[in-house]
Amino acid sequence: MDATHLRVGVLGCGNVGGALVRLLVVDRERIAARTGTRLEVGAVAVRSLARDRDVPVPEGRLTTDAAAVVVDPEIDIVVELMGGIEPARTLILAALKAGKPVVTANKELIANCGAELWEAAANAGVDLLFEAAVAGGIPLIRPLRESLAGEHIRRVMGIVNGTTNFILSKMSDGGASYHDALAEAQSLGYAERDPTADVEGFDAAAKAAIIANVAFGARVVAGDVYREGISGITEIDIAVARRLGYVIKLLAIVEQPDSDVGPVGVRVHPTMIPATHPLAAVRDSYNAVFVEGDAVGDLMLHGRGAGGMPTASAVLGDLLDACHNLGIGAAGRSVALREVPLRPIDDVRSAYYLNLVVADRPGVLRAVAEVFANHSVSVRSMEQEGAESEASGADLGARLVFITHRAVERDVQACLSDLHHLDVVREIGSLIRVIGAA
Amino acid sequence: MDATHLRVGVLGCGNVGGALVRLLVVDRERIAARTGTRLEVGAVAVRSLARDRDVPVPEGRLTTDAAAVVVDPEIDIVVELMGGIEPARTLILAALKAGKPVVTANKELIANCGAELWEAAANAGVDLLFEAAVAGGIPLIRPLRESLAGEHIRRVMGIVNGTTNFILSKMSDGGASYHDALAEAQSLGYAERDPTADVEGFDAAAKAAIIANVAFGARVVAGDVYREGISGITEIDIAVARRLGYVIKLLAIVEQPDSDVGPVGVRVHPTMIPATHPLAAVRDSYNAVFVEGDAVGDLMLHGRGAGGMPTASAVLGDLLDACHNLGIGAAGRSVALREVPLRPIDDVRSAYYLNLVVADRPGVLRAVAEVFANHSVSVRSMEQEGAESEASGADLGARLVFITHRAVERDVQACLSDLHHLDVVREIGSLIRVIGAA
Repeated sequence: MDATHLRVGVLGCGNVGGALVRLLVVDRERIAARTGTRLEVGAVAVRSLARDRDVPVPEGRLTTDAAAVVVDPEIDIVVELMGGIEPARTLILAALKAGKPVVTANKELIANCGAELWEAAANAGVDLLFEAAVAGGIPLIRPLRESLAGEHIRRVMGIVNGTTNFILSKMSDGGASYHDALAEAQSLGYAERDPTADVEGFDAAAKAAIIANVAFGARVVAGDVYREGISGITEIDIAVARRLGYVIKLLAIVEQPDSDVGPVGVRVHPTMIPATHPLAAVRDSYNAVFVEGDAVGDLMLHGRGAGGMPTASAVLGDLLDACHNLGIGAAGRSVALREVPLRPIDDVRSAYYLNLVVADRPGVLRAVAEVFANHSVSVRSMEQEGAESEASGADLGARLVFITHRAVERDVQACLSDLHHLDVVREIGSLIRVIGAA
Repeated sequence: MDATHLRVGVLGCGNVGGALVRLLVVDRERIAARTGTRLEVGAVAVRSLARDRDVPVPEGRLTTDAAAVVVDPEIDIVVELMGGIEPARTLILAALKAGKPVVTANKELIANCGAELWEAAANAGVDLLFEAAVAGGIPLIRPLRESLAGEHIRRVMGIVNGTTNFILSKMSDGGASYHDALAEAQSLGYAERDPTADVEGFDAAAKAAIIANVAFGARVVAGDVYREGISGITEIDIAVARRLGYVIKLLAIVEQPDSDVGPVGVRVHPTMIPATHPLAAVRDSYNAVFVEGDAVGDLMLHGRGAGGMPTASAVLGDLLDACHNLGIGAAGRSVALREVPLRPIDDVRSAYYLNLVVADRPGVLRAVAEVFANHSVSVRSMEQEGAESEASGADLGARLVFITHRAVERDVQACLSDLHHLDVVREIGSLIRVIGAA
């Protein structure tokens, strides 16, 4: 094998695959001049040859036989951009077994089968790289795995889903309702017709699991991640948050606050963060990841988390890394996982925002306050959001907005359960965790 | 050599050296558990053994003989944290020649002698790593060299000097004068007693040269960088910028706008950027680097650019990288430089902010406008900053603030020269380049 001239087998030619092929073909000379490596598109495996593609695939390189590509001795390195667990998993395992490094952007696969794939790569002595699987074009995985390899990371908080950040930005900056913002995201192609994977946090949860793998070495899969989406966030929540100096973001949070052998918490939920926090300024469909380390302090990496070209750029960076390693006949550092206890959501300590509609009559606040007190949840601030009684005198109820001091989730949930049974409570609105409250 | 147990020779035990030794000693077990590499402090070379140090240097490892450390067969890897060009350069060359990888945080050395050192490292087949030389704890060099190795980067703009960002933040957010903000920076230890290297942009210029090396492969040294500092920025400039929707930041700008073989511009100067630009939100002594690439789009990396622990964290990341490479008997990718034409500051195209004090009488604006017109500089907006004539009728002059459309620096400088000769012009204030103007 001539490590300065390598043939790439690309599996999948959708949005990212097409962008990668375009980069490899159009920028071939520039990349070769800059890096000393000539990358040739050796094969592009697709589901159907019939489909019309606006992608400059070299003559005769399109095939429907992905299984042949991964074992083809003419192919030096495999890029998997099909998405989904199968057949991607089987194809990657076959490629690794055949001694070919693999680059993938497949978050679902890595978040569910990472341990198996990394082990297969280590056994084969080749690279399995996946920078593009989290936060698209943002260099995140490499900084976490290499630059911060010796750092005791306490917490990583990420805006890792562009669709939900777009929706929340439209709600915060433009005053849109959730449904209008979602419809706009769909019309712009940021959200799918069925938006569940994005808005209910499944996509972010998969990325949280991968962050837990690489930043904490924790053996975690997507299903281990506590998850809440943004479909319950109302215009009232957004408006109240703003008035209190906060912004609501869907965050993937991975933390190990106590020590590096203590329990790791991995969760995705809407979060109120101070409007002055660097993550609060991350707008539209941008992604950003905020890292808090013992030595390094606070870091933030910000950029395009999705889209064909940004994601293809991350894949290309991995490809060039794998080529360098092929040239020296060695693999880069593997991902080593260990069993660490997971912190259940019930044990998480946080401040909370809670909004209730209650009967508008004397004694109600006392009754609600008693519930908080019974569960040792201490209230930091309470506001009544304008009594809603009409001129007619009909009691439409009053909205009470609470921010608690830091409390244990279990106790806050017990409060909610008691509040449900309180006859003066008409409606229990959003419960949103608050980070960075004084 | 046992690559899982390596002895580190540390040259220099000041702020960063002390923090690194502390990390290596205190976190030894944690780092070994996490990475599989046991790093031992083999030697710490200092200028004087007499000085009292609050650093847990292992018994008997302190020495004044740095030259012996770099050739000591008991030392596997050398970390240079002395700063300055000599003797750091000679020691690093000796270490490389002895086959030892070197990690350095020495921006001055890399910005002046990078080409020689990288060549020496490549010849020796070992690593010379320098993540900590630019933007302290922020992973920047590795993402630029590796993640973005295939990217056509068009521009990098960085806030890479924490002292000046602190001063400008105090002026912008707190309304402080330059001198008061500088005094506060000095009292907090952010600025030296002689602040020249920071406030006149020498520190940022060295970092700009290194960015040009790694992001563009351009053979550039610190002295090639066009440089202006912040000591001429007035409270009026800050206030006018704010009213126009801008923030003033000292930026290191490296760009290659035309093509990847076109001229590279490398410069450091105060810059007006829109208040909505991500760099505008970088406050206090934080650093951030904004990267614009063809495929990846806009990226920003944000964090602590200085300080013992953040910088030591970056050094530790490099150390672990070098250890991995020692273990596989190979070096990472070297920095390959090429001759590229530099774009002289005279050829740069930019919008400009210019502020003049002129006589407060009819016809003055016409005279000034004629100068702009004569040099093909088109004015986008002009404001008169309140006529300053007193009730007494004495003509104290009027302040005119111009923002130009994009123009060529040479033409703008020719305007300034003509304006100097115009008798209605009493004072020529700041000329500040504007980025992101419509």
